[in-house]
Amino acid sequence: MPLPVSPLAPESQPDLPAIAGCKVGAVAGGLRYKGRHDMTLFRFAPGTTVAGVQTTSTTCGAPVTWNAKRLPGGTARAVIINSGNANVFTGRQGDEDVAATAAAVAEAIGCAAEEVLVASTGVIGERLPIEKLVASVPVLAEHVSPEGWAEAAAGILTTDTFEKRATATAKIGDATVTINGIAKGSGMIAPNMATMLAYVVTDAALPATVLQAILPPIADRTFNSVTVDSDMSTSDMCLLFATGMGPRHPEITSPDDPALAGFTGALEDMLRDLAIQIARDGEGAQKLITIDVTGAEDDRAARAVAMSIGNSPLVKTAIAGEDANWGRIVMAIGKSGEKAERSRISVKVGGVTIARDGGADPDYREAMIIDHMKGRDIRIEVGLGIGEGTARVWTCDLTHGYIDINADYRS
Amino acid sequence: MPLPVSPLAPESQPDLPAIAGCKVGAVAGGLRYKGRHDMTLFRFAPGTTVAGVQTTSTTCGAPVTWNAKRLPGGTARAVIINSGNANVFTGRQGDEDVAATAAAVAEAIGCAAEEVLVASTGVIGERLPIEKLVASVPVLAEHVSPEGWAEAAAGILTTDTFEKRATATAKIGDATVTINGIAKGSGMIAPNMATMLAYVVTDAALPATVLQAILPPIADRTFNSVTVDSDMSTSDMCLLFATGMGPRHPEITSPDDPALAGFTGALEDMLRDLAIQIARDGEGAQKLITIDVTGAEDDRAARAVAMSIGNSPLVKTAIAGEDANWGRIVMAIGKSGEKAERSRISVKVGGVTIARDGGADPDYREAMIIDHMKGRDIRIEVGLGIGEGTARVWTCDLTHGYIDINADYRS
Repeated sequence: MPLPVSPLAPESQPDLPAIAGCKVGAVAGGLRYKGRHDMTLFRFAPGTTVAGVQTTSTTCGAPVTWNAKRLPGGTARAVIINSGNANVFTGRQGDEDVAATAAAVAEAIGCAAEEVLVASTGVIGERLPIEKLVASVPVLAEHVSPEGWAEAAAGILTTDTFEKRATATAKIGDATVTINGIAKGSGMIAPNMATMLAYVVTDAALPATVLQAILPPIADRTFNSVTVDSDMSTSDMCLLFATGMGPRHPEITSPDDPALAGFTGALEDMLRDLAIQIARDGEGAQKLITIDVTGAEDDRAARAVAMSIGNSPLVKTAIAGEDANWGRIVMAIGKSGEKAERSRISVKVGGVTIARDGGADPDYREAMIIDHMKGRDIRIEVGLGIGEGTARVWTCDLTHGYIDINADYRS
Repeated sequence: MPLPVSPLAPESQPDLPAIAGCKVGAVAGGLRYKGRHDMTLFRFAPGTTVAGVQTTSTTCGAPVTWNAKRLPGGTARAVIINSGNANVFTGRQGDEDVAATAAAVAEAIGCAAEEVLVASTGVIGERLPIEKLVASVPVLAEHVSPEGWAEAAAGILTTDTFEKRATATAKIGDATVTINGIAKGSGMIAPNMATMLAYVVTDAALPATVLQAILPPIADRTFNSVTVDSDMSTSDMCLLFATGMGPRHPEITSPDDPALAGFTGALEDMLRDLAIQIARDGEGAQKLITIDVTGAEDDRAARAVAMSIGNSPLVKTAIAGEDANWGRIVMAIGKSGEKAERSRISVKVGGVTIARDGGADPDYREAMIIDHMKGRDIRIEVGLGIGEGTARVWTCDLTHGYIDINADYRS
């Protein structure tokens, strides 16, 4: 029984153009869902570089462990993603199944298994249906095409209620390069947890060292600044590929090259777009919440305070109830453990100052923000007044729908 | 509209005996709730010693700040608690109101204001109705009696659904001393958060230095090992008083004195009892969850893993759905960031091994624990297999009732 599409879903998704040197597509491998695309493949031209950030979970899945060994090599010819089974907590068998998957892809496309990255999302603790999976690989390897992006964006989903796609162009010197990205997240596979996956491909020619330098800080400000329920998946990853098959541009050898600024800006905009789409598809979400913290000791502290607010069940239930409960926001600031002085804290909701200088604003009346609280986009601004640190975090409200999805829907 | 009593409430509460040197009671001060006892006073004999642990929130309430300055003195003649208003985020006015409250109590009972401790629980950001409060203090000071414990246990409640009382005796040498305790917690005052308060009084004669040495580690293993929703109140405190008016016993000058072992054991049992009662009154709770972690790097790591499981919305919603979702437990172990090796992790639910050696137990069948999952008391045991660290944590499931209380009930 499919879940209803999130009321926060974007009205439309962009069509993603072809990226030279990249073929994508998905097929129905029958791994878990009947008649649904559940195996997705990206196939890259020789010379494609790669960088990635993956979950820091100590109980991460076998594919995450495999990729962690391959990513330092900096090149990849393919990434294969299956949905329906996470291949997590599957012991040595799980590692062997990842190796078999990579070997099958390598044989089908003619490369080394070490040049194949792997991802899985779905049920924990069940062995991958490896025979079915391997049997479908040759079909999938031939099926991929430069136009297969929409199929891939759907193929990586689990219980997401909508596809998450983004595309952008950027100038490097006089050349216009293209970046495509797809993501999944915040849909839950009973009996398991939300997993965030993102695959971003550009036709720019960028060394892996440059990609690996620019991706982690951008991921921190985008994917790692989204929280639905504070739980971290065993399978999260964001991979960035550069085929080098686009228009010729000046050689880039340093992440600090000014010629790269347009590219990194476009990449961050895209990852932010995908990250917010994930928050918009949060389980049971009825409202998107954007939390800005300013005046913190430093950016790290600002992010910790913003995440403390964004992860607070009491803040999130208050917003579900359309109650601008600033007392709970103050509580969440206090429990973060980050430096704060009561007399300097200010809180705005929907642009209206509710509290400042350590107390309620005498001019504030609840009527001033009733309309804002009834809307879909809730804005919280916290000023700590002690430094220059800033951060922005996105989350969603905590509703009966979250309980329905995670408690009442049994597998 | 009172909330229904938690289905996890104990069938009965003990009658608390008189403690020599302590008079208690509560009156209806009309601070917020009509016709309900909302001001509670403990009045102590001269020479009473005190120790305490309070919230570490950086946005703590004015009473917490006041007490933090008085506790190092080690003596107290009274503690006054009001419910309905937390006196949090009330600026300099809040500090002045605490001082005025303490001064009123001091005048009524004849001591220094510095010997009066103060606690408040309730709404954040509203000024205390200080005139009403001060006006009721003389009445309250005369109303207290050695038999007033049940009244006090009720007086400190906010939206708790039942009183939390405990009593014990212990031997120090040949003398039998008495310990009484009352607590509140995990009930929510719209528009605010749960607050945990506990007041424990003994007739033993113990120096404040001894009390302050034994209380924090016991509080860590009891009150600080309970979590309902991971949110930390701005007003939490646990205060321990010793009147020294009980039967004569050997002088105790060190927390390590073997003669004190019976007392500290009884104190820990009592605080654990009260802490579990708080979990049993968690907002919307239908099931009490006890989480044991063994084999961790050390006790601190064990507690961090146990709290990661106990705070996981996905684990708590699974249990609400009577689903022994061990994949989510493995996820919560992984996200704790504590040392773990997949191949050594084991998970039991209801005493049945579900996963071991990094994978599902092949002998496990869901039918083996269906009855356990339908019950009120859920047991989770995690073995990490890498050290000697152990911890036990208590929490409750995350249900529609939690959303009802925190989102749908408006103030």
